[in-house]
Amino acid sequence: MIDLKALADLSYGLFIVSSYKDGKFNGLIANSVFQVTAEPPQLAVALNKESLTHEYIKSSGKFCVQPLKETAQMPFIGIFGFRKGKEFDKFSKVSYKVNTEGLAVVTENTLAALCVEVKQKIDLGTHTMFIGPITFAEVLCSDCKPLTYDYYQNTLKGKTPKGATTFKDYQGGVK
Amino acid sequence: MIDLKALADLSYGLFIVSSYKDGKFNGLIANSVFQVTAEPPQLAVALNKESLTHEYIKSSGKFCVQPLKETAQMPFIGIFGFRKGKEFDKFSKVSYKVNTEGLAVVTENTLAALCVEVKQKIDLGTHTMFIGPITFAEVLCSDCKPLTYDYYQNTLKGKTPKGATTFKDYQGGVK
Repeated sequence: MIDLKALADLSYGLFIVSSYKDGKFNGLIANSVFQVTAEPPQLAVALNKESLTHEYIKSSGKFCVQPLKETAQMPFIGIFGFRKGKEFDKFSKVSYKVNTEGLAVVTENTLAALCVEVKQKIDLGTHTMFIGPITFAEVLCSDCKPLTYDYYQNTLKGKTPKGATTFKDYQGGVK
Repeated sequence: MIDLKALADLSYGLFIVSSYKDGKFNGLIANSVFQVTAEPPQLAVALNKESLTHEYIKSSGKFCVQPLKETAQMPFIGIFGFRKGKEFDKFSKVSYKVNTEGLAVVTENTLAALCVEVKQKIDLGTHTMFIGPITFAEVLCSDCKPLTYDYYQNTLKGKTPKGATTFKDYQGGVK
């Protein structure tokens, strides 16, 4: 029995994942982000190979993960989530600063920034998992709630684009 | 700057992860579970190398992930989360069935079962990440809410044991 509706019961946050190449920044929205060890603190993200952010991370060997605030609105999320970085300069539309790692930290609608130096790249077929230790971590709002993937789907009625780790044909009919 | 309080803004679910060896079942509680590709649907989990479940997954090459219901209570969670499988038969204390993969599916306090055949083992130092396609998926409750790690920490006041991917010395003082 393989009833993939069971996948809807996995819980996630929602994050901007960003990197740089040739003096340009780009980012996307991902849910597949997690801490994989405590000592040292390491993060893993799984990104679609066709995304520009994937190309930038392969090039720079670095990325930042930024949990979104629960109050982030769809037009903001859409800048990172529903536009193609190859066609559109996403960072021209948002406030950000450049940190000591040379990475862009979005300073609106985000709770924190956690940046990683990639030590392992795992080929997953359509996606690559990038894993490495945290080299930069900053809290941007200490009493804000993070946006969960559940809240995004069920309260904001956000969609999951094709290419996401959690894209599903049966989407919309699940819960 | 490395302010690890930023790690508290990553969102997770809470899961029983289980496997078998020599006719015995064992499982533990983990939060580091996520879907990493959609086609085919693949899951990843990161488990501490010292856990018995880690040994069982290495032996069988299979595991099941079961999201907990939000209504699961601490005594039940504690069976899997705060006892050592090497000293205690956890499955003697819960209701379960054995599925077509030969894996145990806990039938109380869980929403679903998603079982995986391991195709990749990634060495992360203290932990191993096991990744593979879903070979069995069953919804056990279609209108139940999953327990999130946030709800576990902040409403149930659950602790994170040493050995977890998200264990932190500063725990309790975060949020």
